[in-house]
Amino acid sequence: MGKVKCQLAISLDGYVAGPRQSLDDPLGVDGMELHRWVFDLEAWRGPQGLEGGDTNPSSQVIKEAQDVGATVMGRNMFGGGPGSWRDDPPWTGWWGEDPPYHTPVFVLTHHPRDPLPMQGGTTFHFVTDGIVSALEQARQAAGDRDVLIAGGANAVQQYLAAGLIEELQLHVVPYVLGDGERLLEHVGDLRLEQTRVIEAPGVVHLTYRVNP
Amino acid sequence: MGKVKCQLAISLDGYVAGPRQSLDDPLGVDGMELHRWVFDLEAWRGPQGLEGGDTNPSSQVIKEAQDVGATVMGRNMFGGGPGSWRDDPPWTGWWGEDPPYHTPVFVLTHHPRDPLPMQGGTTFHFVTDGIVSALEQARQAAGDRDVLIAGGANAVQQYLAAGLIEELQLHVVPYVLGDGERLLEHVGDLRLEQTRVIEAPGVVHLTYRVNP
Repeated sequence: MGKVKCQLAISLDGYVAGPRQSLDDPLGVDGMELHRWVFDLEAWRGPQGLEGGDTNPSSQVIKEAQDVGATVMGRNMFGGGPGSWRDDPPWTGWWGEDPPYHTPVFVLTHHPRDPLPMQGGTTFHFVTDGIVSALEQARQAAGDRDVLIAGGANAVQQYLAAGLIEELQLHVVPYVLGDGERLLEHVGDLRLEQTRVIEAPGVVHLTYRVNP
Repeated sequence: MGKVKCQLAISLDGYVAGPRQSLDDPLGVDGMELHRWVFDLEAWRGPQGLEGGDTNPSSQVIKEAQDVGATVMGRNMFGGGPGSWRDDPPWTGWWGEDPPYHTPVFVLTHHPRDPLPMQGGTTFHFVTDGIVSALEQARQAAGDRDVLIAGGANAVQQYLAAGLIEELQLHVVPYVLGDGERLLEHVGDLRLEQTRVIEAPGVVHLTYRVNP
């Protein structure tokens, strides 16, 4: 069976999104700064259908993150907060017709909704009976492959507190956001073992085994 | 002229000391967990007069941290908070007769006091006219060598906010403290450039140039 992993870009002061997230600014003020290291990489551009791009030690990290059999995400990550859920036309996430997941994606929500197939292999499934159920469905869908807990902070915190994440990878960006959404709070007692460090331009990738 | 540098051990969730710091527990609850990676190193033990010890990639980091011409520290780091300042016998810090600094140490304080020479080359100088004055005196004392802003969090925050630290090194420990004294808040707008990453057992050493 694959493992349950989580990987997030995080500021040096511990934020995974900036303040004042909104429909117009889903990553919050300056939240985009956390992701600059990724946009020029071929490993990122290829799956978006873009040609060219760089290769550096982050490339391997991106490829690993894409190598999952199913994905779980919180309702804020899918829906973006108040006002984004709507019926006509129905909200289909932030990512256009061909989202970058290319797997079944189990979305934690309080709103029952039929599965939403997108282009490129992504199908959003809406799970209303909690994080354990969502993870079980994702494990089932993933088979032998890994399950990615994609975010946001609140969903990851719930899974960490429940002891359900086995590997945590943080892409630590040399940026101080000063405000926003923190990752590592409300996570209960975690034991962590540092298992890998990868230095790359504008980011360092830290991997931890959780509760080894 | 040397540079002004700062290096601190920090939990993965951003704390440099645990909660409820006191005379009996100057690092706060579980704060000692941030420093476990250092105690078995020969590079640490030697200057304490202890024989033996390990060598690993952290050894170089410890030696660099010790290679300074003068040190600045905040009053909490020297004095440990309410109750520790006393006149009979006078408070001489946490470190015994031979503190591990082996340089002039400029202590930020509101209490004028004569310089306090200790064994092994450490002399505590008490500076009552602010952080800029303390740093100027330290630079003067250091000559061509580096000045270390040793901590604690509040002093480092003041120096970062004032734009007076040139190099920040964080020893990131795979431990979640959950509460305590955060480092990277109240620091204003910082620009950071990641300049070095060293992976070592139980810690990763991240170095940043500040406001490059």
